Amino acid sequence: MKHKTIALDAMGGDHGPRVTVGAAKLALEQIPDIELVLVGDRAQLEKAVRRRELGDDPRIRIHHASEVVGMDELPAVALKKKKDSSMRVAIDLVKSGEVQACVSAGNTGALMATSKFVLKMIRGIHRPAICTLLPAIRGHTHMLDLGANVECAPENLAEFALMGSILAQSVEGIENPKVGLLNVGTEEVKGNEAIKQASRLIAQSRLNYYGFVEGDDIYKGTVDVVVTDGFVGNVSLKTGEGLAALVNHVLRTEFKRNWMTRLAALCAYPVLNRVRQRLDPRRYNGASLLGLNGIVVKSHGSADTPSFFNAIKIASIEIENDVPQRISRTIENYFSQAEAAIS
Amino acid sequence: MKHKTIALDAMGGDHGPRVTVGAAKLALEQIPDIELVLVGDRAQLEKAVRRRELGDDPRIRIHHASEVVGMDELPAVALKKKKDSSMRVAIDLVKSGEVQACVSAGNTGALMATSKFVLKMIRGIHRPAICTLLPAIRGHTHMLDLGANVECAPENLAEFALMGSILAQSVEGIENPKVGLLNVGTEEVKGNEAIKQASRLIAQSRLNYYGFVEGDDIYKGTVDVVVTDGFVGNVSLKTGEGLAALVNHVLRTEFKRNWMTRLAALCAYPVLNRVRQRLDPRRYNGASLLGLNGIVVKSHGSADTPSFFNAIKIASIEIENDVPQRISRTIENYFSQAEAAIS
Repeated sequence: MKHKTIALDAMGGDHGPRVTVGAAKLALEQIPDIELVLVGDRAQLEKAVRRRELGDDPRIRIHHASEVVGMDELPAVALKKKKDSSMRVAIDLVKSGEVQACVSAGNTGALMATSKFVLKMIRGIHRPAICTLLPAIRGHTHMLDLGANVECAPENLAEFALMGSILAQSVEGIENPKVGLLNVGTEEVKGNEAIKQASRLIAQSRLNYYGFVEGDDIYKGTVDVVVTDGFVGNVSLKTGEGLAALVNHVLRTEFKRNWMTRLAALCAYPVLNRVRQRLDPRRYNGASLLGLNGIVVKSHGSADTPSFFNAIKIASIEIENDVPQRISRTIENYFSQAEAAIS
Repeated sequence: MKHKTIALDAMGGDHGPRVTVGAAKLALEQIPDIELVLVGDRAQLEKAVRRRELGDDPRIRIHHASEVVGMDELPAVALKKKKDSSMRVAIDLVKSGEVQACVSAGNTGALMATSKFVLKMIRGIHRPAICTLLPAIRGHTHMLDLGANVECAPENLAEFALMGSILAQSVEGIENPKVGLLNVGTEEVKGNEAIKQASRLIAQSRLNYYGFVEGDDIYKGTVDVVVTDGFVGNVSLKTGEGLAALVNHVLRTEFKRNWMTRLAALCAYPVLNRVRQRLDPRRYNGASLLGLNGIVVKSHGSADTPSFFNAIKIASIEIENDVPQRISRTIENYFSQAEAAIS
């Protein structure tokens, strides 16, 4: 059995310890053999731990950190000035090997910058990427990059394909995940030069490459992994969030229109509730920072307790599957294969 | 009263005359002072017109064209080889001034290439853009470009801002539409160089510039016009289509689960139907090709009769507001103003 110790940036996110310690309790109850290190203000965390009756649990401990990175703080400033922030100390614990992963709901830019600085990139990977799981008509879709890189070279996209594929194998247990490259059409002539070149690189690798996919394929589940640059990935992810909010808004206003529609709502409630559960973004909370020498999972800043728990679950799965190690082993021959095949 | 004669590429799209002639009938019934020219195979169209009892209506006539552009045909091939296609002839009628606009459900690439070749660009506009209306929590959003240009210079994005603003004025009757530039964050430091430069250009113009918006703002309705390049716009639009399909799929399967949920569906049917109507993509069918010396509206290829009718309605509104003329008049001083303000 592997050591499964996870550091939680217990002060990060919009809600801090109220959510992170609550989620820690859920994790201790539901994930076997997990150990947790709560990083942050000792006094606050001791109080939160006592309130949740976790004080006597040997599987949880507190590691003091005196500072907190603000949600709007500039990454460079956080990195330089807050060396004793709960975020930084949690990542330091990954670096020192004291824990095997860390989870934070703090500011994405600071988390990425600090993780890169402390953990360094895996040899052979040139850019990190942020990857998340999304619901789809058929199964699920892993999408990356979601915003670590606004501009990407073809080699970066090809590296994302590899990392996404390994994550999908680990999280979803799919042996040979289908990988698609996001484009504005599925014909070979479509897209810009970087996309076409990335497509050739991935096609020559050992990955199960499907070819180009379009925006609607993400939620259809045409492939297991959708690869794109951080600009497009971020816009696409947030477009989905916006449309979900619109549908929710229209459903609410129509069901609240008058007493007849309110009656209909009552009648349809159990079904609508199941619909909501199936599409619940909380079930998908937890984006993986890939390409680093260590496991870092980013929770949504506004995550509630079950959402943050989900992010801990993802970190735990990545530990079990030793994701960074697998990426490192696979990247070694990745491009040499592709280049040999091309030449 | 302006002449409002619109040429319909009556053979284009997945359904051809069955849909286009049906939509023509709706248009004659509902749009005052409209005249229509059905372009395509005379024999087929005469039959379709008779079937719809439009044979005696002096406001509709048939213009023969012997060829049809295939939905998968390469734009360059269609342009070169099919000079008597229903699409090409409809655009030629705009050029000659015989009609004031044309509507086609044919292949987007061919429609754009042929329109550019025949009508030419408005002086001062360097790239055409495709713009559509989308539903939002507050009002509606015009988004462009949706795929005419996979790569855009800052000047192109600034031109799109101007064209989108004029279209929103015309279609929505908003005096001073709020314009946003799609980015991966709303802070000034976010995004790539092209985006930052475009932002400076638009900020210096007379447009009502809101600044950066993110993907979720599209369906929130934060601004009236969302500007982006054709790659991001296309992915974002299709992401929305995919997510809508997923929500629809989950609603259907949950309401069909067993007899109790089927009963709930019956009960909620009137409300769900209203929800569907409010979000119905058919109400938003009809994308404007902007930047050309002439009005061209693209209908979705799979459009049904009410959808295609909506595209005709948009063409009619653009005629009433003389959109190309307004773009042409406004672009003249657009950059000189911006440059003067910057220097």
